[in-house]
Parts: sequence; C-alpha cells; structure tokens
Amino acid sequence: MAQKDKKKQKTFRPKARIPRGFRDRIGAEIAAERAMLARISAVFEAWGFDPLETPALEFTDALGKFLPDVDRPNEGVFSLQDDDEQWLSLRYDLTAPLARFVAENYDALPKPFRRYQAGPVWRNEKPGPGRFRQFTQCDADTVGAPAPEADAEMCALFCAVIEAAGIKRDGYFIRVSNRKIVDGLFEKLGLEGDAKADVRLAVMRSMDKFDRFGEEGVAALLGSGREDDSGDFTKGAGLDDAKIETVLSFLKSGPDETRLRFKEDGAGLVARGQDTLAAIADLVGETKSGAEGLEELSGIERATLNFSALPIIFDSSVIRGLDYYTGPVFEAMLRSDFKDDKGRMVQIGSVGGGGRYDGLVERFKGVKVPATGISVGVSRLLAALALQDKTAETAPGPVVVLALEKDQMSSYQQMAAELRAAGLRAEVYLGGSGMRAQMKYADKRGAPVAVICGEDERARGEATVKDLALGAELSKDIEDNKAWREDQPAQFSVKRGELVEAVKKVLNRKP
Amino acid sequence: MAQKDKKKQKTFRPKARIPRGFRDRIGAEIAAERAMLARISAVFEAWGFDPLETPALEFTDALGKFLPDVDRPNEGVFSLQDDDEQWLSLRYDLTAPLARFVAENYDALPKPFRRYQAGPVWRNEKPGPGRFRQFTQCDADTVGAPAPEADAEMCALFCAVIEAAGIKRDGYFIRVSNRKIVDGLFEKLGLEGDAKADVRLAVMRSMDKFDRFGEEGVAALLGSGREDDSGDFTKGAGLDDAKIETVLSFLKSGPDETRLRFKEDGAGLVARGQDTLAAIADLVGETKSGAEGLEELSGIERATLNFSALPIIFDSSVIRGLDYYTGPVFEAMLRSDFKDDKGRMVQIGSVGGGGRYDGLVERFKGVKVPATGISVGVSRLLAALALQDKTAETAPGPVVVLALEKDQMSSYQQMAAELRAAGLRAEVYLGGSGMRAQMKYADKRGAPVAVICGEDERARGEATVKDLALGAELSKDIEDNKAWREDQPAQFSVKRGELVEAVKKVLNRKP
Repeated sequence: MAQKDKKKQKTFRPKARIPRGFRDRIGAEIAAERAMLARISAVFEAWGFDPLETPALEFTDALGKFLPDVDRPNEGVFSLQDDDEQWLSLRYDLTAPLARFVAENYDALPKPFRRYQAGPVWRNEKPGPGRFRQFTQCDADTVGAPAPEADAEMCALFCAVIEAAGIKRDGYFIRVSNRKIVDGLFEKLGLEGDAKADVRLAVMRSMDKFDRFGEEGVAALLGSGREDDSGDFTKGAGLDDAKIETVLSFLKSGPDETRLRFKEDGAGLVARGQDTLAAIADLVGETKSGAEGLEELSGIERATLNFSALPIIFDSSVIRGLDYYTGPVFEAMLRSDFKDDKGRMVQIGSVGGGGRYDGLVERFKGVKVPATGISVGVSRLLAALALQDKTAETAPGPVVVLALEKDQMSSYQQMAAELRAAGLRAEVYLGGSGMRAQMKYADKRGAPVAVICGEDERARGEATVKDLALGAELSKDIEDNKAWREDQPAQFSVKRGELVEAVKKVLNRKP
Repeated sequence: MAQKDKKKQKTFRPKARIPRGFRDRIGAEIAAERAMLARISAVFEAWGFDPLETPALEFTDALGKFLPDVDRPNEGVFSLQDDDEQWLSLRYDLTAPLARFVAENYDALPKPFRRYQAGPVWRNEKPGPGRFRQFTQCDADTVGAPAPEADAEMCALFCAVIEAAGIKRDGYFIRVSNRKIVDGLFEKLGLEGDAKADVRLAVMRSMDKFDRFGEEGVAALLGSGREDDSGDFTKGAGLDDAKIETVLSFLKSGPDETRLRFKEDGAGLVARGQDTLAAIADLVGETKSGAEGLEELSGIERATLNFSALPIIFDSSVIRGLDYYTGPVFEAMLRSDFKDDKGRMVQIGSVGGGGRYDGLVERFKGVKVPATGISVGVSRLLAALALQDKTAETAPGPVVVLALEKDQMSSYQQMAAELRAAGLRAEVYLGGSGMRAQMKYADKRGAPVAVICGEDERARGEATVKDLALGAELSKDIEDNKAWREDQPAQFSVKRGELVEAVKKVLNRKP
C-alpha cells in the first residue's frame, strides 16, 4: 500500500495552469506599466509625497472589513492562519495598511504625513473581463490634514497625475461628492437606524450603477429588481415609487452634460459647481447630514478656486464602493472618445477615485486622525492610452548571434559582448538546433538583426549581417523564390572588426 | 446577548502592528532598491532577457515542494484554500512559477526562452536578523538550453549584474559546483537508496554550513551534533569518523584561499579550476554520478574560457538549499572587506545563487525541458553597497510653503505650483497648527527651504526664503540666542516674482 502510494506520487503531474482571475504579463505590457508608475511617482514626489512600502500580508483585524462586496463568504479578502493561529490577509487596498502604519508609528511621523505607494493588491472576488483578483494600485494620501484644502489638493493632484500619464486636459474630469449628502438623502427617505442598514446598502449599490445602467436600470434596482442581458436577476432594494423618484432627482442633480460631453472652457466649471450645490441643497439641505455635507462641498469649492482651470466638478451620483469614506469622495473619469481597432467607441469610465476617511486611524488609536487620499487606476489608464496611441512602439528584440560551429561559442559570445558594450541588446543562440531553426528563433524573438558567422565567413575573417526587418518588408513583394534566395538583398558581409558599426547602421536605418 | 456583542464590536480596537518577519520600508531604502533593480534589469535586457510577471498566488501543487526547510508543518509556504476548495500558495521563489508559465505556454514561446523577473517572494519561515518572510528576488533564466554554455553564460551574467550594481571586480566571485558530484559522494559513503534520504538531507544541510561554521562545526553536525553559542543543540547526521573525514576532504577540495582572500589576476582562476576538478576526481571520479558531474563541470570550464577574465571558480562546498537543482549550482559571494560605522569587518557572504533544474518543467509536461538560471540577492547587495558607499545621499525633502493666513491658501498653492514647474519638490503645509509647529514640520520633512509669506510680506509684495540647511549649520556655532534671533542670517526676503529663482539659488549653494 505504502509502496503503491509512493509510485503514484512519483508519476503525479500537476496541470500547468494559473488560478482563475490571475494573469501573467510579458514584455511590452510590463514596460508600459513601469513607465507609467515612474511618471506618476515623479508627480507624487514633486508634490511632496514620500514613498512607503508595506508588506502584502497584514493582520486581518488590522485591515478591517470595508470592501463593498460583503455578500461573499470570505468578504472579498484572501486570508490564512499563521502558525501562531492568528489570521493574516493579503491587503485589498493600500489605504488600510497606511492607517495601520500611521497608527503604529504615529509619534515619529511628521504631521501631516504625506506618502505615496504603488503595488499589487488582492481581491477575492468573482473575476470578469478586465477584472482580476490581483491588480496594481497607486495611491497618494495626506494624513493629519482636516481642512477642505487637503481634499481640493487631492483633486488637483489627480489632474496632474492623469495629465502626466498622457491624457489631455479635455480628455478627463474629476467628479466630487460627499457621503454626508447621501446620509441626508437617507434621512429624507426615512432610512436611518441600524435596522435599515441593509436597505441603505442596497440603495447605495444601486446608485453606484447610475453611470452604467442609467435612470431606468437604477429605478429597477431601487424597486423590485433588474434582469440583465444574460437573464441574471438582481433583487431590488424595495423602495416605493415616490422614494425612487427622490433618489433619481438626487442622482440627476449633478451637471449631467459634463458627464460624457465636457465643454472646452475649464473656467466655466466652478460656476456650474454652484448650480449643482443649489440643486442638492433643495433636496437634502434641511437634513443635518445633508447640511454638513453641503458645507464641506462648499469648502472644497472655495479651495478648488486655487485650481480653477482644472476640470473638477460636483456630481451627486458619485458613491465609491469602499465603506471607510466619511465625507468627500472623488472619482476620476475619462471621456469616452476612445476608439478601438475597428473604430468602435470604447467606454473607459473611471480611472480611479478616493476620498476622506477620518475614522480609519481612529480604529486603532481611539482619537480622530483626519485623512484624505486618491487611488489611481493604473491598468485602466494603460488601457486608455493603448487605445489613444495606437502607434505605441513595442520594445525591440535583441540582436541574435547564430551559433553555427559548436567550437566557436567563444567567438560568438565575444561578438555579443561587443554589441552590448555599444549599448545594444544582444544574445548568442543557446539551443541545440540547426541554422533554419535558429533563424526562426530570431524571428520569434523579434530580433531586428541576425549575425551569422559559419565556417566560410570565419575563413574570410568576416561575418554576415542579416537585416530581418528589411527582409520581412522585401519578402512581401517577392514573386520568385529562387531569385530571392540567390540575391539575398537584406544581408551583407562585413569584416569582423566592423561588425558593431555595421549592425548599428542597420538598426538606425529608417524603414 | 446579541446587543452586548454589538456593543463590544463597536468598541473593539485592533492593535496597530505588523506581522512578525514583515517590515515597512520608507523613502531612501525604497529609492535605493528601485535604482538597483533598474540597473540589474538593464543588464538582463542587454543580454537578451525579456521581463515576465507572474501572480503572487499559484496553485500549491504547481509550486511543488522544493524548499530546504521541510521540518516545519507548512513547509515554508503561506497557503490558503480558494472558495472552490483548491489550495493556493504565495510563491516562495520566481523559478517554480516560471516552470508553470513555460509548461502552460510551451508551444507559443521561442526556445530557448529567456526571461527575467523581479518581485516579492514569501517564505513562511522563522524570521531572524536580516531574514524576512517577504523579500525581493530578481531572477534571470534560460529555458530550453541544455549545453554547458548556458550555465557558463549565467555565471558571466551574474558577474555583469554584480558589477552593474556597483561592486568592483575584485570585490566578489562566483563559486560553481554540481549536485551530481555530491551524489557521487553519497555513493561513495554508501548512502544511496530511498531509506537513506533523511541521512542524505542531514549531510547536505551540514555541508551547506561549511562557510559559516568551518571544519569543526561541520564535523560536529555530521557526527553526533552541535551546540551553538546560545546553547541550542542541533542533532547530527550520525556518520562515523571515517565518513566524516571523507566529507571534509570533499568540502576542502575547493580552492580554499579564494573563498575569502581573492587574488588580483583573474586570468589565474581557470587554471586553479583544473586543480579543483582533479581533487574532486580523486574523491568521487569512480562513481557514476561523480563522473557525470565532473564531465559537466569540465564543460562549464571550457565554456567559461569565453569569459576568462571573470572571477568564476569551482568550489565543491557549494550546495544551495533548493531541492530542484539537477546539476550545476552557482553562488555569488562578496569578499568580506566591508567595514561598518565602527570599523568592524562585516561579512556579507552570499548575494545570490542559481543552477540548472532540468526537471522542473518536466513535472508538468512529462518531457525533459532543460533550464538554468540565477537569482540575485537584492537586499544583501544593497546592504553591501550601503557599507561600501557611506556617503550615499538621501533624497531631499520638499520645499515647504508655510500656511500662515487661512484665506491665502490659493496664493500658497500658486507658489508651490511655480516651484514644481521649475522641477523642484514643493508642498503647502496642510495641517491645522501655527507657525512654530509648521517650522518643526519643515525640519522633520527634511525640507531644505521654507517659504514664508505672512501679512507683512504680503503687504510688501514679498516672500521670505529660509535656508534650513544653512540655518542648521550656523546654529551649531551660536552662543547668543538673542543675537541669533535678531540677525536671522539664514533667511532673506525677495520680491514675489523672484521667489523661484531665489529658492533655486539656495538649493544650488554648496555647503
């Protein structure tokens, strides 16, 4: 029996597969994200934020439970038990670990404390198209700054970051709202108190979908429920028609025309902010929370006068999913003028958000530590830029030095070393195959040039330089295979000592 | 009861703490690692390696069990169960995920496949000084290259990377050995067969400590056991004296004098390689595995002739902990000529390793896919460089614009924006405190300059520029506090329009 198990174990072959909702990334995609994070980090540093790095695993109780997707058993988080029985979780964002860090090191830190952090976060959620269980976040936060100027600065910083990423000023806008005016709405609807927490949650989730589902869809979600295109039914919040109407008026009090069509003169935005505030005041101004929220929004409006040319607007339909926001919330939106390869309009929508979370450090310390911050949606921004700039170049492959004579590896490595010393990417073919397979390899690697030095070339003290890009171009027009093979217009021989210069010349050739 | 729980929940305060073996990193340390990874990546790319990124979580069975520390219950890995009951683990290195990636995408990849990857890995091990449960690895591997030239290239690449990181050629060396000669040793000792796997493991672990514990310590570990300085006792492998002597001869067959004292003429190394190979041949040459291992080492020696100026040596005491190596193993060592602040010698030792693992992709595919690679010990290299270059500069703090008049925040933000536009780091103080606390804040931020514009300055159309670095220098020699306060030698007023130029002049001042 034991021996049988042993044998079985020996032939066990795990299937090579990646867990669902995760992905591998290669070459150009990594380079693009790296370049974007470098640009964003440079803006954060210019604005006085310092880098911080916290570990992937935190104590589960330190992270708290603030994710929107609370229906699932493990509440959106990957958790495991350490060998001392304590529960650890992979961070689901960069804000909860920041609160832990600030609470742990409070006395040593300058106040306000301004930090930025970029890195992966994990969500144990149902994956979907473009929705992964590991993704990159990039945050900046100011902890210990209670004034609306700090919130306004976050909105302006968001603009600077999005523009540094490569989006023009007429291609995005920042929407601002306040959790407290939503609380005012709940007061008005008679949805206060612990007993109605579930209804409030259902209403907020419905409101959060205003952008995607529109008035009709949200009305269904607020009422009896909504069936989507695939036939899946989502249960509704169960509000009556009058209340649904109130919620819809609230959502529509934002400057509707700016959501997708944004006017050119940035200066006009602040004035429209006043209109929105007036509309919100009509609806929830008489409630206690609503009045507080309006006061905070007015504060941000006064402070954003400092940044009056920036596309920052008020929009009462901004909700943001995370549970820890206590007042102002922000969301960065791209205008949907992106077209894909087939000319179809592509809606990118939100490229990040943020808000004020005055209670997150208090959870640990018992005293209020006001904080506000933003989280940049790096992968969404990259997707937008890929659509915007279709000529984005992919990184060039290395020059491949073919390995034709086994006992000449030394001289092939010497060629590669010389090419590298001249600043070029270069490698020697290290597989076990012949010339034809080696040329295929060079193609697959995206090599611009192959260097060939067989017995003949070596005897003449030469090497052959093959221009693979030119070869690919010319071969499109070739009718006569035989003539092509005899002419070989895309390759030439050079003296061994002139190899590097010859390769450089080929690489500098304009196609 | 339910209500009592509710109340208890409301006042629950998690302790703000980081799990043991994890750490937060700030500012300069992050910048240093980022810069080093950029330099190493540039070398990898120049040598024809492309970036790959795999997720943190993999299926547990895909990672396999290859860690040396198999005594612990969870075998060194952080694992959790997904909601479909499958086990996932945080990657413990970057090699096992590479094998999974290659097996999963085999047909689409060029062969050989050359990739590099940098990122965090996790080990569920007992933390210690400088030993963390999350750390950064940076690997390059060539998959599908069976020849010793690929191993030799890895050793040469290691040299290029270490030198790019900032270590001079006489400051390090690469030690090379082969798992098969260790198998030959086991044959000679009569330790073959499944029944003796535990003894073999104990012997290998003891051998792996030759660098740290020396001849005497390893002899104790091979025999009855060893008591360390703290009184902890490690059980021995239980070999008799004759066998212990054989193992020690094996370990000492390496070029002992090179281990810590390395001669200047790199060219002499290959000759010494021959001496080592002869000594190993005397010991294990007659065994089957030993003969194979010697053949492979000779192949690497022939191939390293291509890189003959590089400090690459054979050393039979190299073991490397990971279980998946099948032949050649490499280890990069720094020479111990680093001194700390107090002039004491600091032993850095290994800064990474690697080897050939021909069976790792085979686990999935059932066919041999030869592979070889290296893993650079980034944090060890950073520690060495910090000791080597004690003048390493820390990143400068931002210029802090004081916020003295609440209704002038707009003009303060305007000043910060102008300074940023000139390429400087700048921020407005956003806390709620007065002038004295704001100056303390600027100090704590490491600000080189504070910009002060109160009512008086504003009335004159001016701003005050305070040179905080000069202030700190001058204050060292100050006896008379009163005179100091009246003179204020480190600050001056400028016209508002000349602010940026004035701040730049202060920042360019040589101390």
